[in-house]
Amino acid sequence: MPEKKAVLFIVDGLGGRPTDMDGETCLEAAETPNLDGMASGGINGLLHTVKRGVKPGSDVAHLSILSYDPEEGYTGRGVFEALGYGMDATKGNIYFRTNFATVDGDVVQDRRAGRINEGQKELEEAINSIDLEDAEFNFKATNQHRGALELVGDNLSPHITDTDPHESGEKMKSCEPVTSSKEAEKTAEIVNQFIEKSREVMEDLDINDRRKEDGEPPANCLLLRGASHMMDVETLEGKYDVESTCVAAGPLYLGVAKQVGMDVRTPDGATGGVDSDLIAKAKTAVSEVDEKDFVFIHAKGADNAGHDHDAEGKKKFLEKVDEAVGYLLDKLDWNRTHMVFTGDHTTPVGYGNHTAEPVPVVFYGSEVRTDSVEEIGERSCARGDLGHMEGLELLPVLFNYNDWTEKYGS
Amino acid sequence: MPEKKAVLFIVDGLGGRPTDMDGETCLEAAETPNLDGMASGGINGLLHTVKRGVKPGSDVAHLSILSYDPEEGYTGRGVFEALGYGMDATKGNIYFRTNFATVDGDVVQDRRAGRINEGQKELEEAINSIDLEDAEFNFKATNQHRGALELVGDNLSPHITDTDPHESGEKMKSCEPVTSSKEAEKTAEIVNQFIEKSREVMEDLDINDRRKEDGEPPANCLLLRGASHMMDVETLEGKYDVESTCVAAGPLYLGVAKQVGMDVRTPDGATGGVDSDLIAKAKTAVSEVDEKDFVFIHAKGADNAGHDHDAEGKKKFLEKVDEAVGYLLDKLDWNRTHMVFTGDHTTPVGYGNHTAEPVPVVFYGSEVRTDSVEEIGERSCARGDLGHMEGLELLPVLFNYNDWTEKYGS
Repeated sequence: MPEKKAVLFIVDGLGGRPTDMDGETCLEAAETPNLDGMASGGINGLLHTVKRGVKPGSDVAHLSILSYDPEEGYTGRGVFEALGYGMDATKGNIYFRTNFATVDGDVVQDRRAGRINEGQKELEEAINSIDLEDAEFNFKATNQHRGALELVGDNLSPHITDTDPHESGEKMKSCEPVTSSKEAEKTAEIVNQFIEKSREVMEDLDINDRRKEDGEPPANCLLLRGASHMMDVETLEGKYDVESTCVAAGPLYLGVAKQVGMDVRTPDGATGGVDSDLIAKAKTAVSEVDEKDFVFIHAKGADNAGHDHDAEGKKKFLEKVDEAVGYLLDKLDWNRTHMVFTGDHTTPVGYGNHTAEPVPVVFYGSEVRTDSVEEIGERSCARGDLGHMEGLELLPVLFNYNDWTEKYGS
Repeated sequence: MPEKKAVLFIVDGLGGRPTDMDGETCLEAAETPNLDGMASGGINGLLHTVKRGVKPGSDVAHLSILSYDPEEGYTGRGVFEALGYGMDATKGNIYFRTNFATVDGDVVQDRRAGRINEGQKELEEAINSIDLEDAEFNFKATNQHRGALELVGDNLSPHITDTDPHESGEKMKSCEPVTSSKEAEKTAEIVNQFIEKSREVMEDLDINDRRKEDGEPPANCLLLRGASHMMDVETLEGKYDVESTCVAAGPLYLGVAKQVGMDVRTPDGATGGVDSDLIAKAKTAVSEVDEKDFVFIHAKGADNAGHDHDAEGKKKFLEKVDEAVGYLLDKLDWNRTHMVFTGDHTTPVGYGNHTAEPVPVVFYGSEVRTDSVEEIGERSCARGDLGHMEGLELLPVLFNYNDWTEKYGS
């Protein structure tokens, strides 16, 4: 008997609303012969990644789908971004997402410092030269205005507020504890001290002098958000005895995968945007399936198009997803593989942000009890035999088809 | 973009059983063109207001539907009745529903003192003249035998038994603590002291002398039930940032609405019975929608008819509900409104009391993923794309369509 394999394909922001495309969702309107084939040959339903009525952020949605309850130890997005950007994360330290921003006095004039695309090294070195009294830290500038910050120390707490006001034109915020613990108070003080010192060292850097001369917004402040720590959770291998790889480009998804102990791969051409080469991802996935038990492929572009109110872009990206699914259907060994296709949340193009409606979910493979659904879609899958399920149930259901899960009781 | 609006229409005791009307439920048998239109243009399912298999009281069902978990602080119905009768409620005080009753010795001969419809003022004044050693109190007589009692004091507990035996012919009960706390013991003692004194002052009132002469059962005792306190919960506005109104007539529903911080309206002609003017309620709702974000309309009569084993009466009332829904469909602005229609529990006319079967639920509005259901009904809605949902999920799902809810995670 061949060794079994499991594949999870998540399309970020997969779901939509009938107002997206004149009575149809983008997924319903898209030409998706391969996904329709998967639905016809599989069992279909709807997935609430957290719970019915809950509008999930991408971090929480992915944790749930990978069977980690966000209620048990999720503190924020920072640690996943830091991991995704290649930082190592250590239990007890605190992680933030950061933006280079332009401030005048206390007012944030541009949260992204004009999407600055130069001088990251100079800025990073300047910031890393700061001395703090009560903690060490590591800062990493990544692409454009983005970066990650690690605060290293004893008795630190992630239960503190963002300094990022989340909107240009607003005052930057002082970091405050959100619990009354000494740890949170101390951490907030350290952060405020860090922010003050970082402003001092950033203000007169050559890069900023040059930008000011050229009329470009200077990167004279670092905004912090998503304070969080490593979750103290068992790895996916510990939970299910599976070796696994995540194929993704977006740092958040790579970071969540690392948090749960997966290997990660980002093939050339995979961008985390609508222009991503999904066939490259599918190829990488197929080769990873040879080595590993479980492969998770993430495709981001549908969410981006949803946030950009771009219905045609979302539809086109979903058609690219369909081609990648076609590649997998063609190349994987269906004598030994079960695959699930789903999304992490709905991102209607009208609203342009996440909403709580469930997303289609299809399980495919030889052991699946097929149903009468004949095409992929929010409404077609609603009539499938799976009914409504929740994120935490997804991997147990998938791995059950491979007879990988443990019996409860005897 | 216009400001969005949300409407909740609850029919008390909406659900039924096939034995109600010769193989059909009253809802299935009723002529309901407007509700059928709402079902056709909406998404349908079944609602378990608490959980599958749980037979909900009206108080608990309404708390759940308004997204307040009764497990978190529900102690009894008294406080809602008191609020609904226009008493102010203060945290820490204890509230009861009361009946004027006729007792002989310790035996309750008539739990409603012949549905007494006179002398309420005299009885109320006599009772309010009592002095208690360890607590203050306020008593309010309302309609017929009904009233509400507030016990004011420190360290009082709602964890005490009813003095009402719930059946005529039984002995009235002594109030007993149901936990071993000092507070419950003290509160039970105060209640027993109050009952004794109230019997003394009621016995020889003019109204009772007159009733005895006329062969009418005297109101010579007050029965207490539903001891409870204000729930320590956030208001609906605090939870969801919505201003809201409840349009209802029954004191329980007005009281639950007040508990969660809603404004309340009872239009002329709204009675809380089968004779209620539901078009008056719908008109009030439409005008409240202009002022508020969220309006909850309650219609009670279907439950009354169910309790009275009156299948024709329930069917007719549901046809009146349908007209009111037609008025709303006609008058509300569907470019900005989402509405949900459902019930709080099943009240089959055969059994004549609440049962645990789920009730139909329909969400309607532009963002809803419509399904293939074409008429309202317990069995038709069961085939809708919503599947089975629970009460606590109802407002999050409704408000999600208006993009009013917060993201969990980022």
